[in-house]
Amino acid sequence: MLESSPHGFQYAGLHCGIKPQLPDLAVITSAAPCVAVGVYTQNLVRAACIDWNRSITPTDNIRGIVINSGNANACTGQQGERDNRQMASWVARELQAKTKATVLPEQILVLSTGVIGRHLPLEKVESGIGRAIAEQTDSLDAFYRAAEAIRTTDHSRKTVVRHWQHQGKTYRLAGMAKGAGMIGPNMATMLCVLTTDFPLTTERADQAIRLAARQSFNCISVEGHTSTNDSLILLAPASDAAGQSDSALPQFQELLNDVCLELALKIPTDGEGATHLIHIRIRGAQTDTDADRIARTIALSNLVKTAVSGGDPNWGRVVSAAGYAGVPIQVDQMKLEINGILLFERGQPVPFEPAMVSRSIRQTPTTSIELAVGVGAGAAQHWTSDLTADYVKLNADYTT
Amino acid sequence: MLESSPHGFQYAGLHCGIKPQLPDLAVITSAAPCVAVGVYTQNLVRAACIDWNRSITPTDNIRGIVINSGNANACTGQQGERDNRQMASWVARELQAKTKATVLPEQILVLSTGVIGRHLPLEKVESGIGRAIAEQTDSLDAFYRAAEAIRTTDHSRKTVVRHWQHQGKTYRLAGMAKGAGMIGPNMATMLCVLTTDFPLTTERADQAIRLAARQSFNCISVEGHTSTNDSLILLAPASDAAGQSDSALPQFQELLNDVCLELALKIPTDGEGATHLIHIRIRGAQTDTDADRIARTIALSNLVKTAVSGGDPNWGRVVSAAGYAGVPIQVDQMKLEINGILLFERGQPVPFEPAMVSRSIRQTPTTSIELAVGVGAGAAQHWTSDLTADYVKLNADYTT
Repeated sequence: MLESSPHGFQYAGLHCGIKPQLPDLAVITSAAPCVAVGVYTQNLVRAACIDWNRSITPTDNIRGIVINSGNANACTGQQGERDNRQMASWVARELQAKTKATVLPEQILVLSTGVIGRHLPLEKVESGIGRAIAEQTDSLDAFYRAAEAIRTTDHSRKTVVRHWQHQGKTYRLAGMAKGAGMIGPNMATMLCVLTTDFPLTTERADQAIRLAARQSFNCISVEGHTSTNDSLILLAPASDAAGQSDSALPQFQELLNDVCLELALKIPTDGEGATHLIHIRIRGAQTDTDADRIARTIALSNLVKTAVSGGDPNWGRVVSAAGYAGVPIQVDQMKLEINGILLFERGQPVPFEPAMVSRSIRQTPTTSIELAVGVGAGAAQHWTSDLTADYVKLNADYTT
Repeated sequence: MLESSPHGFQYAGLHCGIKPQLPDLAVITSAAPCVAVGVYTQNLVRAACIDWNRSITPTDNIRGIVINSGNANACTGQQGERDNRQMASWVARELQAKTKATVLPEQILVLSTGVIGRHLPLEKVESGIGRAIAEQTDSLDAFYRAAEAIRTTDHSRKTVVRHWQHQGKTYRLAGMAKGAGMIGPNMATMLCVLTTDFPLTTERADQAIRLAARQSFNCISVEGHTSTNDSLILLAPASDAAGQSDSALPQFQELLNDVCLELALKIPTDGEGATHLIHIRIRGAQTDTDADRIARTIALSNLVKTAVSGGDPNWGRVVSAAGYAGVPIQVDQMKLEINGILLFERGQPVPFEPAMVSRSIRQTPTTSIELAVGVGAGAAQHWTSDLTADYVKLNADYTT
């Protein structure tokens, strides 16, 4: 039974009617009160669910999480806050009726994603929640149905399921994410929910998720627009037994990092209209923070992104983007390789065969950009999507 | 003779062969040593011409300026520096031969624009400079030919010619600019050369051009990629007579501001692939600087830019972009109007007719975005282009 979802959690995903046809409501519940930690958007314009969850996590007393797609419930004022609380209350009510144990609204987290500035169709959501609680199971199929229901413009569900052993015992970690546009994470990105049956204290879970986020969701972008609803949440059984967790923790952290990175990379890979994942590696900056800033500046340059989509080895755009990142660089020490081909070294162009570089970009799904900036030992990496006419078409009439 | 170019300057524009067919070389000379002041890109990756001009201006001893399009002579190392100096030397040599007065290379400014990372075809440039000096005249036609020769992806030349009177005397101010992509000015943008026959001291000219740049070229963008070659240069006859200049200076400054703004707005209006100019006005920020940061963040959001090109009243994108600008805002005090139609007020959506807003965006060439952020009296404005599939197509195969 290795290929199962983490024990102790039940999942449901279904269509309640926020969207015309596709699945749009997911519920995950925990058999017992569990640890929940989160990392959320730093956008000052925040969805109602963000304020709700931030006031609750970190905690060791969560019974479930409800997620809707198709409507972000952001910029919806006080009614948005009431609607959000209502969603949590309905899940609590249904779960209490089913389990015959007290469940409070404050034990339910809420995530929303979709169009900004519209009120939720509450009746549909209420009936959907009732059905979800009735239908939910601990099967992998139910987990995948939940992952389907949180999609917006994603081409397919984004899930990773892993298991590992420690001292003869098997543990599981399962993650679902969504996101393909409005991706410019700042401390978190889009929606991602992780469940595990590996017991954790609240404090350890909180540290672990922040570390994993820093190396994964915080290193990706599509067009750099930080969303109002970014959330990364980890649910785990509560532990107060320090011993078992301590020795197993490094292995768990490594696995969590892997799963977060794998889920995060699915986002720019599935970037709206994208034809290439762009992997940017910077070294030689004064600090890691400086390197990160250079990587992001390159990642957000429409001129770099269009050059990649066109298979155009227009390396001057990469080098010049590094130049306006606002951190020190040494132009005459710079070195640039695209897909391993040297194009620029010591501040001078290197003779190269444009057709060969162009072919290399066109024929590989990931474009590698490696840039040394020659002032120190700072390094960073970032992944982004290329920019295509399809991105523009997709986003030119999103709400109309 | 009001409709003439500023007295004391001669212009030429021609095809020398950097590009396959179009005009690509312009020369402007001054009959006497003149004042020259400049504002240049803050990109650390700078073209050879930027370092050359920065080492010379501000000065009162300039005899001319040579401008080539089709090749930025940026990221070209020491050979690029030698080539740049060579261009100045050839202009000095030809001008000296023609005028029989000593002209030094350091009396000639150089501007280049076009592809980054390629060496200039020097023989073609040398022969072009010889022809330009032989052909140049003070006619408006010659001024327009020079303006044609500095274009890259611009649809047409960008020029403004004005005259005014002060104490019975007529003065003239003529400006040419180029730019349609790689526009994210930081202290200056792209190429703009202004000539006037209004006498100025070097110091006054320098103050005047910085003030004008701040309110014009520094308030525009296309995709926000700060170029390696941005330059704004003003040439004027030298004055040491304080009296005349002093009383006329306010009028000159106002005119200079107007001309710079008019030229600057031609850039996002002609933005690569653009179908709308977007005019963003922010008020209610803590400071003007904060307001400027919010305006730029909105201007650089691909999601805002695609919504405008698609006529999609997706106002949540504007509000959420303000939220990640990194400066204080008060969401429950925010107010947004698009083309004068109220869409969001006190942190709540306002009922509106999407089809009407959509029609308004589609039918007007300029989209007005007015956002109040509710924390103070800081205000700013910014102009940018919308983002279309044509921008992507134009930039996907620029060098290949």
